[in-house]
Amino acid sequence: MSAIDDLAAAAARYAAGFDKGDLPAPPARRVAVVTCMDARILTSRLLGLEEGDAHVIRNAGGRVQDALRSLVVSQRLLGTNEVMVIHHSGCGMRGLTDDAVRSAVREDLGADDGGLAYLGFDDVEQSVRDDVAFLRDSPLIDPGAVIRGFVYDEKTGRLTDVA
Amino acid sequence: MSAIDDLAAAAARYAAGFDKGDLPAPPARRVAVVTCMDARILTSRLLGLEEGDAHVIRNAGGRVQDALRSLVVSQRLLGTNEVMVIHHSGCGMRGLTDDAVRSAVREDLGADDGGLAYLGFDDVEQSVRDDVAFLRDSPLIDPGAVIRGFVYDEKTGRLTDVA
Repeated sequence: MSAIDDLAAAAARYAAGFDKGDLPAPPARRVAVVTCMDARILTSRLLGLEEGDAHVIRNAGGRVQDALRSLVVSQRLLGTNEVMVIHHSGCGMRGLTDDAVRSAVREDLGADDGGLAYLGFDDVEQSVRDDVAFLRDSPLIDPGAVIRGFVYDEKTGRLTDVA
Repeated sequence: MSAIDDLAAAAARYAAGFDKGDLPAPPARRVAVVTCMDARILTSRLLGLEEGDAHVIRNAGGRVQDALRSLVVSQRLLGTNEVMVIHHSGCGMRGLTDDAVRSAVREDLGADDGGLAYLGFDDVEQSVRDDVAFLRDSPLIDPGAVIRGFVYDEKTGRLTDVA
């Protein structure tokens, strides 16, 4: 049995007690959260989100360059007007170079990644400030949107406002 | 007070009861979930995930083209060997054309999106099959990885295996 079978079994239990069928698509709190895919981050538990509350966009590092398509859809079609960027202290993207991933792809898979940018960073507070600045400067992001940035520490559970 | 202030206040309550500080970065269940940013999907509640269990990658539609960088990092650096793709029936990307978003960007923001592809789709089962095929064919994805695809119905809470 694969891990996916376990997750699908959990989903069947969720469906059995489900009573949220009438929620609209636009997020009730009008906010989009951008954060890392890291397994230690349970976005809804961390931020107190219920079904229908917020868009949640997640990728390696929680980098906004990789979330731009989704944020445009979120703001233009589904009415969000705040963006909360959360990176975290123990992120695997910290100190990661494109060369390191590229070599692993070549050695493990015998493949050429075509120069894919992996968006690693050195300093987590700086990466949050960079990403908030990227969104504030982007012509595709609503100039009236509230954009704020935080660092989450997965060792303590604490979230710190940095931008 | 912004929605972000509410979410940060919830995070302070989470930190107060936090006892998960010793979890390693590699996901315990060795699975990466790729799903939509939709506010009605609470990934951890739906799939029974606890802190440390699984990578969660989310974007508009749950499209894997937009998750490739993250999946390479997940597989090559953090040891996941299963990918669970979940799209959902009431997705805002269903029936969405690039032109519709592009016009909204132009009219609302006066900006040119430079030909950004928004990755809308017509049929949700087909989009799941397409995304599973994309990963199975990608030279950057581990050929030994289990890759499966599901459709979630946010009206009933049910998850259906489609690929």
